[in-house]
Amino acid sequence: MTERVKYLLSDDRIPKAWYNIVADLPAPPPPALHPATGKPLVADDLAPLFPQAVIAQEMSTERWIEIPDPVREIYKLWRPSPLIRARQLERALDTPARIFFKYEGVSPAGSHKPNTSVAQAFYNKEEGIRRLTTETGAGQWGSSLAFAGSLFGIEVEIYMVKVSYQQKPYRRALMETYGARCIPSPSPLTQSGRSILAKFPDSTGSLGIAISEAVEMAAQRDDTNYALGSVLNHVLLHQTVIGEEAMLQMADAGAEPDVVIGCAGGGSNFAGIAFPYLREKLAGRSNARVVAVEPVSCPTMTQGRYAYDYGDTGHLTPLVKMHTLGSSFVPPGFHAGGLRYHGMAPMVSHVLELGLVEPKAVVQTECFAAAVQFARSEGIVPAPESSHAVRAAVDEALRCKAEGKAETILFCLSGHGHFDMQAYTDYFGGKLKDVPFDRAALERALADLPKVG
Amino acid sequence: MTERVKYLLSDDRIPKAWYNIVADLPAPPPPALHPATGKPLVADDLAPLFPQAVIAQEMSTERWIEIPDPVREIYKLWRPSPLIRARQLERALDTPARIFFKYEGVSPAGSHKPNTSVAQAFYNKEEGIRRLTTETGAGQWGSSLAFAGSLFGIEVEIYMVKVSYQQKPYRRALMETYGARCIPSPSPLTQSGRSILAKFPDSTGSLGIAISEAVEMAAQRDDTNYALGSVLNHVLLHQTVIGEEAMLQMADAGAEPDVVIGCAGGGSNFAGIAFPYLREKLAGRSNARVVAVEPVSCPTMTQGRYAYDYGDTGHLTPLVKMHTLGSSFVPPGFHAGGLRYHGMAPMVSHVLELGLVEPKAVVQTECFAAAVQFARSEGIVPAPESSHAVRAAVDEALRCKAEGKAETILFCLSGHGHFDMQAYTDYFGGKLKDVPFDRAALERALADLPKVG
Repeated sequence: MTERVKYLLSDDRIPKAWYNIVADLPAPPPPALHPATGKPLVADDLAPLFPQAVIAQEMSTERWIEIPDPVREIYKLWRPSPLIRARQLERALDTPARIFFKYEGVSPAGSHKPNTSVAQAFYNKEEGIRRLTTETGAGQWGSSLAFAGSLFGIEVEIYMVKVSYQQKPYRRALMETYGARCIPSPSPLTQSGRSILAKFPDSTGSLGIAISEAVEMAAQRDDTNYALGSVLNHVLLHQTVIGEEAMLQMADAGAEPDVVIGCAGGGSNFAGIAFPYLREKLAGRSNARVVAVEPVSCPTMTQGRYAYDYGDTGHLTPLVKMHTLGSSFVPPGFHAGGLRYHGMAPMVSHVLELGLVEPKAVVQTECFAAAVQFARSEGIVPAPESSHAVRAAVDEALRCKAEGKAETILFCLSGHGHFDMQAYTDYFGGKLKDVPFDRAALERALADLPKVG
Repeated sequence: MTERVKYLLSDDRIPKAWYNIVADLPAPPPPALHPATGKPLVADDLAPLFPQAVIAQEMSTERWIEIPDPVREIYKLWRPSPLIRARQLERALDTPARIFFKYEGVSPAGSHKPNTSVAQAFYNKEEGIRRLTTETGAGQWGSSLAFAGSLFGIEVEIYMVKVSYQQKPYRRALMETYGARCIPSPSPLTQSGRSILAKFPDSTGSLGIAISEAVEMAAQRDDTNYALGSVLNHVLLHQTVIGEEAMLQMADAGAEPDVVIGCAGGGSNFAGIAFPYLREKLAGRSNARVVAVEPVSCPTMTQGRYAYDYGDTGHLTPLVKMHTLGSSFVPPGFHAGGLRYHGMAPMVSHVLELGLVEPKAVVQTECFAAAVQFARSEGIVPAPESSHAVRAAVDEALRCKAEGKAETILFCLSGHGHFDMQAYTDYFGGKLKDVPFDRAALERALADLPKVG
């Protein structure tokens, strides 16, 4: 009974500032470019979509950005999130490694996403915005923005990737419970949606398409802005509360991580746990390996090209330099919907290029195997996205066992799988296939990359 | 930013003992009776179904019963659960009342049920049991026992009320993720199930029927015991960690409740929050009103008779004195599956008779209205069962507003509704009906009460 399992922090230890990694990098990331002119983006270019405060954060080079009091007040509903020592999993694996996980599934929407949705809703409300549009894949981002909208009295309109809309009716019910409107994408409501449906009437959608629809709707209306749940600098910034808290909690546990792991779709929960540790690494205060985990079926970091590309399929967004499979690449309909994005956050791509991060790709069925083992030992059923981090953590723990090393592993469990139980049913029913990566589709999509930069 | 929202406790403040209210009551509850002889039950009568340690607890008159270290070790995965000040809800209601809730949805299965499932699995494992059978309504108990079984290496076989099995496929997936076997009840596997199916081939089941099936299966096999998720004294005992923790946390908040509220189906989460406060009340240290909330459609406390009755439909269980609608009463198929039991825990019935508790019945649609308001302010989507406590807490807060009183309200939010989103979809779609209580059915069922006591 002497050993602690949970490391909790009281409300007053919620970080007072977000951490902006760009202040500490040896080189800044390449600038985003205007899609029409090809020139570096300026703040005005983003004004139709985002509030000024968010645009300033997107372009900021300040190391610390203060978290507004009303945002910290709402963070208190679930933050600081717990850091948990996975003792039961360690025993099940019979590993000498110590495994810690930072659990973001305690948030209202069940994932890390409210860390940024609440901040974005706050800044939009401050600047008089009445409505936000967005896209969602697995539904984690949509429900997070719906929740934030309900608190600030902002209408929320969500374009949900059609395959997820069909597979996850309960995520949709959650968004509606928070008062949001949910639309399957591609939809006939937008020019972007109509043009996809004309070409591919049976399209099951993609994040890229849904982004185009949400951006198009926001750009048309003065009282409406757009909110993005990952990829952009300000989103990654808001997620750094994860790593900052984890660092306080690891200190309480008297532990230093040898490996820090996050799953990466757009890159935001990964950045959240990793960027504060990269700061320590760059300052020579940490030797931790930092690992970003992606699916073999949508391998932006391990198979993509580092190049300028559009963030969406309809080519309405700025051009950003990132690891990309090409904006026309549509990954197979596997269950980790949140990892089906064709690109990777430019800032995550940049730290990958700087050699600060190890990318790793894992297959879906092995992720579920690890997730089931995790559930049966720690009780928490991981989201399919988060199961990628679980897989990598288990692999590290098994390596430690083989090598007889008592390393300390820290991973971000970005969310629970309560709204993804169909995926588990499919897994147990032997219905999940590990679709081989379609290299020909990749080559075709890469051939379409814009000729810039 | 000065006010705290969450009151957390570290692992070492998990209570070291469960509280047994019988030690402090002015009179003991009437004894359970053997169904064949009508004589007071002795320990040996329960031996085919329960381990000795559990039987001893069932009959104990000791005030405090030590929580074994391995149980406290597993409690650490989620306990102490948070006490949360519902500031956003207070603002939304514009009430002078302070509202606190003890949130049991942080457990692996998403409800208070693992407080007892872990204890029961531990004692069964200690006594060499290999398999546990049980019933489940909404699925919260089944998934809790499945989780506990996975930790102790015990097989778990769950008879799930058919209407819930059909309405809640994801609860079933959760049980299977924890490694349990789930069977829709009534089933053709047992004599009890077959006899119901012969009479009512389209039966949607009830907790009473599912209990008969699980008990029958356990009684037939030496290596198999039965585990009950509510109603019995030992189950209520294990749940008192809720109230004991809440008391420590309310002290940290510098608050004393004027009203303590819990929803009551079998009575276990209600007893968990209420019994420790009843101790304080009996000792003259608290003036709190204690309120038990039930559905108008299954109103055991407000419409039932206080009489000896069977715990199940098949009449395999002992006779217990409780508030009952009659064991042949089948409530309509509303969504709070966990509140569809025909009886109330004998110990809860007893404190009701002693006048220590106020019963209250509420209608389903008003519970969902309160639950949606709660979700939109506090972020947490309540389980349909828990929404009954939310409704009562909101009613108290509105009364405080009308009366201009700044009372302190404490309620137990027994679980989240992530596996009950179909109920919310039905609510928004206007498909939920408040079925009037069927008094004729009640009279018929009461006429069947056994002639005892």
